[in-house]
Amino acid sequence: MTVFDEATAVLPAGDGRYDVKPDERFAIISGDGTTVGAVNGGVLMATVLRAVLDSSPHPHPVATSAHFLRVPRPEPAQVQVTWLKQGRTAATARATLIQDGAPVLETTVTTGRLGPAEGDAGLSWTGEPPRLPPIEECLGFGKAAKRTQFRGFAGQVDLRLDPATAGWLRGEPAGSPEMRGYFQLREDRDPDAYLLALAVDALPPVVFGLGAVGWSPTVELTWYMRAVPAPGVLRVAARCRHVSSGWFDEESEVWDSAGRLVAQSRQIARIGRGA
Amino acid sequence: MTVFDEATAVLPAGDGRYDVKPDERFAIISGDGTTVGAVNGGVLMATVLRAVLDSSPHPHPVATSAHFLRVPRPEPAQVQVTWLKQGRTAATARATLIQDGAPVLETTVTTGRLGPAEGDAGLSWTGEPPRLPPIEECLGFGKAAKRTQFRGFAGQVDLRLDPATAGWLRGEPAGSPEMRGYFQLREDRDPDAYLLALAVDALPPVVFGLGAVGWSPTVELTWYMRAVPAPGVLRVAARCRHVSSGWFDEESEVWDSAGRLVAQSRQIARIGRGA
Repeated sequence: MTVFDEATAVLPAGDGRYDVKPDERFAIISGDGTTVGAVNGGVLMATVLRAVLDSSPHPHPVATSAHFLRVPRPEPAQVQVTWLKQGRTAATARATLIQDGAPVLETTVTTGRLGPAEGDAGLSWTGEPPRLPPIEECLGFGKAAKRTQFRGFAGQVDLRLDPATAGWLRGEPAGSPEMRGYFQLREDRDPDAYLLALAVDALPPVVFGLGAVGWSPTVELTWYMRAVPAPGVLRVAARCRHVSSGWFDEESEVWDSAGRLVAQSRQIARIGRGA
Repeated sequence: MTVFDEATAVLPAGDGRYDVKPDERFAIISGDGTTVGAVNGGVLMATVLRAVLDSSPHPHPVATSAHFLRVPRPEPAQVQVTWLKQGRTAATARATLIQDGAPVLETTVTTGRLGPAEGDAGLSWTGEPPRLPPIEECLGFGKAAKRTQFRGFAGQVDLRLDPATAGWLRGEPAGSPEMRGYFQLREDRDPDAYLLALAVDALPPVVFGLGAVGWSPTVELTWYMRAVPAPGVLRVAARCRHVSSGWFDEESEVWDSAGRLVAQSRQIARIGRGA
């Protein structure tokens, strides 16, 4: 069992309630070694999805919308799942991550069944895939980042950034809010719905490309699962359309090793305090 | 008072509850004159937002995520608003539209304050605006559509489509899932947050451009308000990234008459039965 699977485990406690524990092994660590944002939001979404899928009539989280309300601490918490509809094509649950009696993460999840990639008899169409250089030419964080950052989230994921979007690592932001890279866990584990929930928000914030550094807290993120991912490394590409009033949007796409679009997300976040 | 404002009115009933009535004047009418989908989803979102903003500490619905659960009928309903967080920068409410005791539309809304377009002291960046021909060269539905379609939603909004994305009107879809056009109410009314909630899903489904006709029910839609819109006609542009397994995504942007990006949305929907 990987650290990711341990960190996202849920324990049924009856009446749609699950005991969970936001895991400090996925904490966000700042450059000076202090913990910020406490626990990565993607891990929290994966945890909530495990609770939802435990009682879902359909296997795939087609649409997950998440509003991040409070900073989670690495201490016991609960997920409360309430089904609002259980239909033949789609079912929808409200699922709230609660800590010390206060909602930390409010999600609504619509589940359904995604067809096999092959043999889709219906209408099928996909836009252009992102262009990434070979993974060997991409930049890991091994040399660029300080050792302290390898505690927590950055110690669990193996991200390799397209050099064209990594200039900020050496203090030379590209001047456009884009980020592209390869994503996998450092442990050997194939992607699934839970890992996609992590992948959609795994890249550094797109505004780093504009020179805005610092932790950028996600306020809302919605992601769609579009296909069951093939084994192997994922490619993630993110762009932004608008930055103003201290808010920015970030849209990401996740493509699998077979070249299929497997997840899409969009989030709105606050610009980091260092900006 | 416009029909739109009447149709989205809310009457406080205490304890976060509001009496509302999905309005048949915004019903979706099919080509043969029958009502499908009952009432336009954007009008329902605007109604829910009125209830949320009635008790919000902040004036703007920055992030609204909506899961459409059941077909609303033009009969009395209620909106139940529950505040999950009321912070200095952002506040989040859960708001559910309920009819006959069953949830019809589940929304989560994060409110905040968007700064003035001028004088934004912080980081500011915007992507390329959509390219549209002059409104005089765009196509209204007056001649192309059957008279019956002018009851309901189509009778309330004045949409003018970019001819490049309107080939499906004469049975010649362009072959790409895009839609662009100008949007305003037929009545004289300036845009605001409520009208943006209508605008983000006002265009015909992008898959019409692929030849898939018929009503495409939205399953989930999230939209962000990015600026307070200037008076005048709105421009809306929508694209799609992936169609498969009977699902498609649609991303739209709304730009105001001053050339600012004022709203963004993304939805996932089912392909229409006619596909």
